[in-house]
Amino acid sequence: MHRRDFLQQAAALAALPVVGSQIRSASARFQSKPLVVNGARLNGWLAQFDGIGRTPGGINRVAYSDADLAGRAFTRELFAQSGLQLRLDAAGNMFARVPGTDASKAPILIGSHVDSVTDGGNYDGPVGSFAAIEVARSLAEQKVRLRHPLEVVVWQNEEGGTIGSKIAVGLLTPADLDKVARSGKTVRDGIGIIGGDVSRLTEAVRKKGDLAGYIELHIEQGGLLEKAGRQIGVVEGIVGLRWFEITITGFANHAGATPMDQRQDAMLAAAKFTVAVNDAIRSETGRQVATVGRLNVTPNTTNVIPGQVVLTVDLRDLDQAKIDRFTARFEQLGRDIGAATSTKFAFTQLVNSAPAISDSRLLTVIESSATALGLSHQRMPSGAGHDAQEVAHIAPMAMIFVPSVGGISHSPREFSRPDDITNGANVLMNAVIAADTVLP
Amino acid sequence: MHRRDFLQQAAALAALPVVGSQIRSASARFQSKPLVVNGARLNGWLAQFDGIGRTPGGINRVAYSDADLAGRAFTRELFAQSGLQLRLDAAGNMFARVPGTDASKAPILIGSHVDSVTDGGNYDGPVGSFAAIEVARSLAEQKVRLRHPLEVVVWQNEEGGTIGSKIAVGLLTPADLDKVARSGKTVRDGIGIIGGDVSRLTEAVRKKGDLAGYIELHIEQGGLLEKAGRQIGVVEGIVGLRWFEITITGFANHAGATPMDQRQDAMLAAAKFTVAVNDAIRSETGRQVATVGRLNVTPNTTNVIPGQVVLTVDLRDLDQAKIDRFTARFEQLGRDIGAATSTKFAFTQLVNSAPAISDSRLLTVIESSATALGLSHQRMPSGAGHDAQEVAHIAPMAMIFVPSVGGISHSPREFSRPDDITNGANVLMNAVIAADTVLP
Repeated sequence: MHRRDFLQQAAALAALPVVGSQIRSASARFQSKPLVVNGARLNGWLAQFDGIGRTPGGINRVAYSDADLAGRAFTRELFAQSGLQLRLDAAGNMFARVPGTDASKAPILIGSHVDSVTDGGNYDGPVGSFAAIEVARSLAEQKVRLRHPLEVVVWQNEEGGTIGSKIAVGLLTPADLDKVARSGKTVRDGIGIIGGDVSRLTEAVRKKGDLAGYIELHIEQGGLLEKAGRQIGVVEGIVGLRWFEITITGFANHAGATPMDQRQDAMLAAAKFTVAVNDAIRSETGRQVATVGRLNVTPNTTNVIPGQVVLTVDLRDLDQAKIDRFTARFEQLGRDIGAATSTKFAFTQLVNSAPAISDSRLLTVIESSATALGLSHQRMPSGAGHDAQEVAHIAPMAMIFVPSVGGISHSPREFSRPDDITNGANVLMNAVIAADTVLP
Repeated sequence: MHRRDFLQQAAALAALPVVGSQIRSASARFQSKPLVVNGARLNGWLAQFDGIGRTPGGINRVAYSDADLAGRAFTRELFAQSGLQLRLDAAGNMFARVPGTDASKAPILIGSHVDSVTDGGNYDGPVGSFAAIEVARSLAEQKVRLRHPLEVVVWQNEEGGTIGSKIAVGLLTPADLDKVARSGKTVRDGIGIIGGDVSRLTEAVRKKGDLAGYIELHIEQGGLLEKAGRQIGVVEGIVGLRWFEITITGFANHAGATPMDQRQDAMLAAAKFTVAVNDAIRSETGRQVATVGRLNVTPNTTNVIPGQVVLTVDLRDLDQAKIDRFTARFEQLGRDIGAATSTKFAFTQLVNSAPAISDSRLLTVIESSATALGLSHQRMPSGAGHDAQEVAHIAPMAMIFVPSVGGISHSPREFSRPDDITNGANVLMNAVIAADTVLP
């Protein structure tokens, strides 16, 4: 394809004003036949990758483990065979850069991660990482050169708290370095293990203006797209998240000898609270979610009324004001239920991350690309956290989702169909082409 | 006191028909001045005993531990200094026997246990054990001789499942021998450690008719007496108990990416069930109790919707029909909540013990004794299990309760006032005297 045709297509994808009949006609031609990646190659890589870190319990490529190292070696090989020259930053993030035609432009960044949770699946991370490599390779094979440089990234340790991308935007705290990853290794040690250099982390930091934009393809990790019958999710943003640890103190006493009206049952209070949080979050329309995921009882003995329960609430929404409002509501529920059950609720905030809102220009190019490819799509928030939320601190960001079968992820049953993955990579490629036009 | 006076007093205590003016007058004299134990001595023993097995967390005389052995050695010394000759049965239960005047009679048995729970108190068990020794000693000092032999018992390992008394009534199963006590030792090993002989356990078994009756003094372990302002609890029976383990299976999924209406949240189901069980048990008048005491969540992670919860329900009442009825109701609640939350409830019965009903003649002698001593009293069930429930399988049984301050037991804060303990021992002594008359 000639450079001029390509620019016309990009203008069409970006839904830019089209001027003149020649361009219109080019646009029409493109929309009937947009660029596509080599989907078989991409899915072949994923199938090969499935053998790395697979255990009876699921995929275990937890950050800094031997399986993670093997996964990174496989990925490095993909960079090499795709003609992409790998650069490791001090955090151990893998980068490759394809120069653009305009040396004054900051790069467009695409990518994801390849580490997994414990007993996870093969799609959360690798899909977006390998698709980014495939997009860079396909663009080169199809002789498409962007104005912006194109960078491909594979972030390290996403599952342990978006560690690699946090370092890249300068938001990793010294305390984070002492966090123990699921492999049992600290982030500090892990960085050395994967070839980074913890003493030079500041060199890995990118500032505002260093990136023209970031687009990440990822599996949905929920069932919205499947339920709605849509092929592509256009991610409006990554929800803000607040985690509470709530300690409910009652009084442990004999389960047989203590009449029902003389109890200070911390478990009963915890149960009432769990039900009330669920009722509250569902009492309003919207996509807000709240989950009691962790709950520990003391003394946790069949014949003793629980004296203490510690539980967590995970609260998420794209709207910060809604998160704040539900926070206040949950605290009020704790006071009310505490009073009703003669127990005491103490709230501690464990995590508080603000919503990351996608760039509207990037949302538009993603939608236009999906439409051009004939793919059904819808806007949606990401309920899960992603490296994109970190990049959002310094650059325009958006994400593309492909369906997860059964809405399952972080599970050995995690699965996305090869066609859906190819669709996602095609949208990514065309969105990059269009973004090249609309981003400064 | 002369034997004849004593018998008259016994008749009065037993509320037997009084015939003739002479007996009436003796009865009147007795009722104004019933026999009493040496309360200072009894409470002195308890104060000394408090030093054995005391740790920062509470009393730890768990069965077969070094502290249990020390507690038993102390108790043995009390037998000796009280002129009671100790006999260890093959189970390691401690017995002493005071002959009666009628060699044809089976003995009246009194006693309790001296082992404790983990981090327990000094009153649950020792009060009744030492009071029994004190009663035997006081009767001897006051030259009172019963028609029946009087036996004092200190059962081994009550807290691990009324092990000693179960052996004594022939209800210990071979599997029970492999149970691990809180000391980490098996019952089998423990019996050897305390001087029993596991190969001769059948020799320890008592059959129906071997005992005329059994009376056990114990702390209440609940707050009923304190709340009602009563000094003595006359225990109508020991509640039947049913333990369920309920496995609730949902589906673990991402807490951020799974919409509220697409969840199979096992923790939410467990919470609804816990609240529903509480509502059900409180919806009827009566003293039935139900407790969710143990609850374990899988995977128990803040950001994962729980896929499985295993919880227990402890259900107790004096009425077997009521236990059966609530069992059915709880199972129905599981089905209903399972259907409403897209989860599955599976019930397993862990323990099922029938209520043990007290002997009406013994209840009467306890009440008459308390009245004669000027002590306020009320009938009540025992919500806690006791060795008496085992003895009930082979002999008429009743129990005497004294108040627990704050209703607290199985806790380092367990406390019963010395005066209340003396009151309880006095009721025990006079009840034994009266029982000697009413029991065949």
